[in-house]
Amino acid sequence: MSEPAFTRVAVLGVGLIGSSIARALQRYHPGIPVQLFDADAQVRQRAAALGLGQVQDTAAHAAAGADLIILATPVGAMAQAAAAARPGMAHAVVVSDVGSTKQAVIESVTPHLPDHALFIPGHPVAGTEYSGPDSGFAALFDKRWLILTPLDDPRPAYATAVTRLEEFWRQLGAKVARMDAARHDLTLAITSHLPHLIAFTIVATAEDLETVTEADVVKYSAGGFRDFTRIAASDPTMWRDVFLANRDGVLEVLGRFSENLAALQRAIRWGDGQTLFDTFTRARRVRREVIEAGQDTAAPNWGRDPS
Amino acid sequence: MSEPAFTRVAVLGVGLIGSSIARALQRYHPGIPVQLFDADAQVRQRAAALGLGQVQDTAAHAAAGADLIILATPVGAMAQAAAAARPGMAHAVVVSDVGSTKQAVIESVTPHLPDHALFIPGHPVAGTEYSGPDSGFAALFDKRWLILTPLDDPRPAYATAVTRLEEFWRQLGAKVARMDAARHDLTLAITSHLPHLIAFTIVATAEDLETVTEADVVKYSAGGFRDFTRIAASDPTMWRDVFLANRDGVLEVLGRFSENLAALQRAIRWGDGQTLFDTFTRARRVRREVIEAGQDTAAPNWGRDPS
Repeated sequence: MSEPAFTRVAVLGVGLIGSSIARALQRYHPGIPVQLFDADAQVRQRAAALGLGQVQDTAAHAAAGADLIILATPVGAMAQAAAAARPGMAHAVVVSDVGSTKQAVIESVTPHLPDHALFIPGHPVAGTEYSGPDSGFAALFDKRWLILTPLDDPRPAYATAVTRLEEFWRQLGAKVARMDAARHDLTLAITSHLPHLIAFTIVATAEDLETVTEADVVKYSAGGFRDFTRIAASDPTMWRDVFLANRDGVLEVLGRFSENLAALQRAIRWGDGQTLFDTFTRARRVRREVIEAGQDTAAPNWGRDPS
Repeated sequence: MSEPAFTRVAVLGVGLIGSSIARALQRYHPGIPVQLFDADAQVRQRAAALGLGQVQDTAAHAAAGADLIILATPVGAMAQAAAAARPGMAHAVVVSDVGSTKQAVIESVTPHLPDHALFIPGHPVAGTEYSGPDSGFAALFDKRWLILTPLDDPRPAYATAVTRLEEFWRQLGAKVARMDAARHDLTLAITSHLPHLIAFTIVATAEDLETVTEADVVKYSAGGFRDFTRIAASDPTMWRDVFLANRDGVLEVLGRFSENLAALQRAIRWGDGQTLFDTFTRARRVRREVIEAGQDTAAPNWGRDPS
């Protein structure tokens, strides 16, 4: 392994992503001290018991002496985490985050950072439906994309820090991309936020039906529904914050989704099989591209674990 | 293994389900002759090359002498398959099917059967996103539900045939349930048909965006989108037929889905985090029930195959 890009890392928020960063650092750079803090005392206790790093009792203590601080809380709690860490922030510290929305994080976090901090927003496009410090694993970022949305900061130290942060994530297995925050938010609105919103909605709809019992819905879930329940099992707090933070991006793609759904609804009502067939055929093609891009396996998944 | 419930089986339509039945019979009852027919000459050739059974050149030849005939074509082609097989149908033959909708299949198939046939509609709630004779596997039905929707047929032979057909599917690994066709169609509308319609729609919506490139959608699909592409990769012909055949059930649950989605859209627009949180929390609970019911594994799946 190459030289570590940072020599002392603080992770604020020890959930799925935060604990995965700690585990990945332990695997790839066992010599680097990792300072951890979480606002939840039980999570701090669990993180210490799991041996994920040096658990501190305040964000400022965790931040003290770090050359990289990563905010890994739900998006709505990042401003608070940054403010709490501020007293411990060293000169020229690099501050980043892992939030699923970027414009709102930039707006809310920036006012709480000292001028000497170099803030480089980031988002690892990786996760599972589980949450909490037990759910992380070192390989979570392997071959997944990490998107950085650097600010318009003219300082030469800022450009150097972006390069170092890219190197940091590559060392944890990720592939790194850069884009501006607005484009990030719209791209993730369609690839992640809308799918989650839809999954939550479809599961809630199933629960509402008087004519079909919940037991039957669960029993016959192998027909497609169970895949939605997996996505809908994701952390409610995290996702509430994502939708509040990326309101414009989500409403934009949601409007388009609703138009397309109405068109298919009309085709069903009027028996227009050609429109259905053409739409389904287009959708099938995208699947091949996802597999070719290495973002999923080709193994049949719907019939998984059949024996 | 116990005595086979039938001694000569004909499967008409050799796709994912039909070829899985043939393979499961070879595994569990290697002595039973399986007669196969598919309207597509290339599929017949492939089925023969795969050694899935005795491939016949007409549906009537495949049906000849069988005591069980299973229609395994897309729902829209079942009437034609039944009509074609009719000249070969033996006295008191049991005819069943594997269609994802039941009321429409009953309406379209029944007129083409001789009076002496015992028609017992069925639906194995199992599948993958793949199609064609190569995609089947013997374990597809293991621990999955098979729903029978028997007709209102007073003949004693009919009741006996239902019991035998239940036994047949249990021998292939399935769990068997009975319900009436209308309830089946509404249950499957929410657990299978709506999820597929939504997945097709969301993938098509992603493809339409001018502001986000398709390449980016594919690249960042690990955030949730890729799970929808898998479902949307299912066979377009089969699904066109399902939506045309179960129009009423699909429109009913689609209406409820749209209402619920509009409520969440409103919560996002007005920053109502509590409504979002409560809905997401309810949805998460259903996931636990699906796992407890043995219809999915608890292994984190979104981060699958990370290395």
